[in-house]
Amino acid sequence: MPTRREFSRASFAAIGALAFGRGRWPGLQSSPTVNGARLNSHLKEMSRFGANPQGGVSRVAYSDFDRQGREYAIGLMRAARLEPRIDAAGNISARRPGTVATLKPIVFGSHIDSVPEGGNYDGTVGSLGAIEVAQTLAEKGVTTRHPLEVVIFQNEEGGTVGSRALIGELTDRDLGLTARSGKTLRAGIDFLGGNVAELGSVLRKPGDVAAYVELHIEQGGNLEREKLDIGVVEGIVGISWWDVTIEGFANHAGTTAMSGRRDAMLAAARFTDMVNRVITSEPGRQVGTIGRLSALPGVPNVIPGKVVCSLEIRDLDNAKIERLFGAIRAEAAKIAEATGTTFSYAITHDSKSALTDPRVQKAVETSARDAGLTSRYLPSGAGHDAQHMARICPSGMIFIPSKDGISHAPREYSAPQDIVNGANVLLRTVLALDAAPWT
Amino acid sequence: MPTRREFSRASFAAIGALAFGRGRWPGLQSSPTVNGARLNSHLKEMSRFGANPQGGVSRVAYSDFDRQGREYAIGLMRAARLEPRIDAAGNISARRPGTVATLKPIVFGSHIDSVPEGGNYDGTVGSLGAIEVAQTLAEKGVTTRHPLEVVIFQNEEGGTVGSRALIGELTDRDLGLTARSGKTLRAGIDFLGGNVAELGSVLRKPGDVAAYVELHIEQGGNLEREKLDIGVVEGIVGISWWDVTIEGFANHAGTTAMSGRRDAMLAAARFTDMVNRVITSEPGRQVGTIGRLSALPGVPNVIPGKVVCSLEIRDLDNAKIERLFGAIRAEAAKIAEATGTTFSYAITHDSKSALTDPRVQKAVETSARDAGLTSRYLPSGAGHDAQHMARICPSGMIFIPSKDGISHAPREYSAPQDIVNGANVLLRTVLALDAAPWT
Repeated sequence: MPTRREFSRASFAAIGALAFGRGRWPGLQSSPTVNGARLNSHLKEMSRFGANPQGGVSRVAYSDFDRQGREYAIGLMRAARLEPRIDAAGNISARRPGTVATLKPIVFGSHIDSVPEGGNYDGTVGSLGAIEVAQTLAEKGVTTRHPLEVVIFQNEEGGTVGSRALIGELTDRDLGLTARSGKTLRAGIDFLGGNVAELGSVLRKPGDVAAYVELHIEQGGNLEREKLDIGVVEGIVGISWWDVTIEGFANHAGTTAMSGRRDAMLAAARFTDMVNRVITSEPGRQVGTIGRLSALPGVPNVIPGKVVCSLEIRDLDNAKIERLFGAIRAEAAKIAEATGTTFSYAITHDSKSALTDPRVQKAVETSARDAGLTSRYLPSGAGHDAQHMARICPSGMIFIPSKDGISHAPREYSAPQDIVNGANVLLRTVLALDAAPWT
Repeated sequence: MPTRREFSRASFAAIGALAFGRGRWPGLQSSPTVNGARLNSHLKEMSRFGANPQGGVSRVAYSDFDRQGREYAIGLMRAARLEPRIDAAGNISARRPGTVATLKPIVFGSHIDSVPEGGNYDGTVGSLGAIEVAQTLAEKGVTTRHPLEVVIFQNEEGGTVGSRALIGELTDRDLGLTARSGKTLRAGIDFLGGNVAELGSVLRKPGDVAAYVELHIEQGGNLEREKLDIGVVEGIVGISWWDVTIEGFANHAGTTAMSGRRDAMLAAARFTDMVNRVITSEPGRQVGTIGRLSALPGVPNVIPGKVVCSLEIRDLDNAKIERLFGAIRAEAAKIAEATGTTFSYAITHDSKSALTDPRVQKAVETSARDAGLTSRYLPSGAGHDAQHMARICPSGMIFIPSKDGISHAPREYSAPQDIVNGANVLLRTVLALDAAPWT
């Protein structure tokens, strides 16, 4: 991890390499700035759709609230002089023409759907921030070389559905799955105005998009804790889930001596503690979690004969996830031996990590510095549409601080000034990407 | 724990003290013996009532199968020349007169109800064994000084209901509770032929019963493991249950660094391992179990913010239970400190231990030795009607081996010879108690 001083040195060195500098655009150092009051007022308006009495929103994909929020966003797009349309996958895509006909679009945006009992910032900051960037460019009369495309991906929280459709990774089986709204993905896409029969029309291949960049709240406490303005996202972590089944022998808790037990709960407890120890035994930002556990038969007076628990490991390095899991299995074998139990593992989810493009990272970092903001590099511990876009084009993400690192909850909060900072860095980054020789 | 040699020495010394010896009865050394084939055939017949296809029985209290089993037992009682009646509490009580009018009855028996998916031995061995003892005495023309009373307590598995009624500890609130049959205790008692309105008529006070003795399967593996025939029960353990609530903070499992977590699951895991360590840290037969655990929100990608688990501790010494619980609380406070969580405890069940009477223990031990059987003293890790009878009269229990220590399951099994041995020890013990100067 470079220090902030190192960042600055690296950035200055990079300016030449990236071939953009003062004067080429109406000032990169003196870039136009967004209308922060307007952006925060739009966020406040958006928070009405699906608002919960206790704060936050439940605007799950394919609900009426989701559709109302999307209609509100489409109105903002029109006001920003964009040309919004709903693609066959149900994503909202709004173009602004560029000056060079041969150039591919620079795409930026996020999502506006939420988890149940979610917050007002996850997704919406990036979506409305992107529209605000487009509106600012329109008002300042800035024309870019590349076409710009503001995108609001549908159903990010239910498995980054819209972006997977864009890269051709939404299967027929996926379309039959039921989303949190109760609708299948297939029915949900039609509900939003998409057209499942034409899903192939949305496909973007490598080379179709010049670059993708997404503004988002951090959903972690690093920036807030270190009092930094901007996170330059190095990549989206890989996420692996296993169901771990521990089998012992259920027996009478009163009449079975401690020495004669094969207690699956005791084995699960030692497993949970060991996972924590293995994950924290080396430097790095890897995380490991036991979030779900069920014990059978699950009554106070019977020694559990069987426990099933989840194991999740996340890291930016897929090989590290594999290595940590191997270490956990080896340690679990010792626990099994000591407790007279057996462990078995079934992988239930496995999304590989996606690295952002170093050139986009550098553009974000430089944009932050030029805007007078502090920054650091960090991984995204959560999944995002950007991880799929990274498969087809140079991609990056811009993070802003989350209060107490809380997300997916009514208490999720990012300060108005941090939101404005993020939108200004997005604006500068879009202009920097537009000016870059490699886009 | 005395060695077998020590038992023998103690037993010889006790013979004089107990004032019974060879010749006083038609031979204590040469006591009559039960008809083992008949007893095992009765057990087999009884296993038809509520038989499950996979083996074992579901003869839960107040079910039709329960009533059918009881009717079968009443028939056996009549054949044994007993005078059975159903008391107001629904217990079956069958008297055999004694020769000394002023003496109180010696009571012996058990129960015939089972847990759902239970086995063929728990309760029935002691119930049909008691009837077999009465039939043997009748056939051999043996008359006792004390009246004898064979009892089949109702609903032992649902909370020793019949014996609690006998000692006046069944409350109005208890009567309103719903049993596993779906009937309330009140309706169940009437269903069995009892009369809730007359419940006071069954009350036995201290002094009303000369002694109580119960034959039962061990429900543990001690006798089988040590290849011993008979267990002399020292007492029924006290059982305390707590609900332990561990509160941390639920947060995103991907974006929350390991160092920033307040993981209730990790705290629960360390708690579970620590309970095992504290319970096994000193000699003795205490047991401690975490049988039930639920984590909230209970999904793979959220750090659990709250865990509720059960804690059960059993020991023959109530003070030891208290002391162990105190040690667990103290250790849990350190875990709370280290994990940023809080622990709270709510007691949900607390039955105090009940010691059996040393004179009854000695009569059982001597009877086993005189029958040429090996024995050891041990506690009962499970609850029994005897624990309530111990409140009003000198009480004891006789255990026989359980295969693999399994009970409350179809695989529950005691060998025919062990059952016959148990019934013969019961017969000798009843005669010894009848002859004792203190009964």
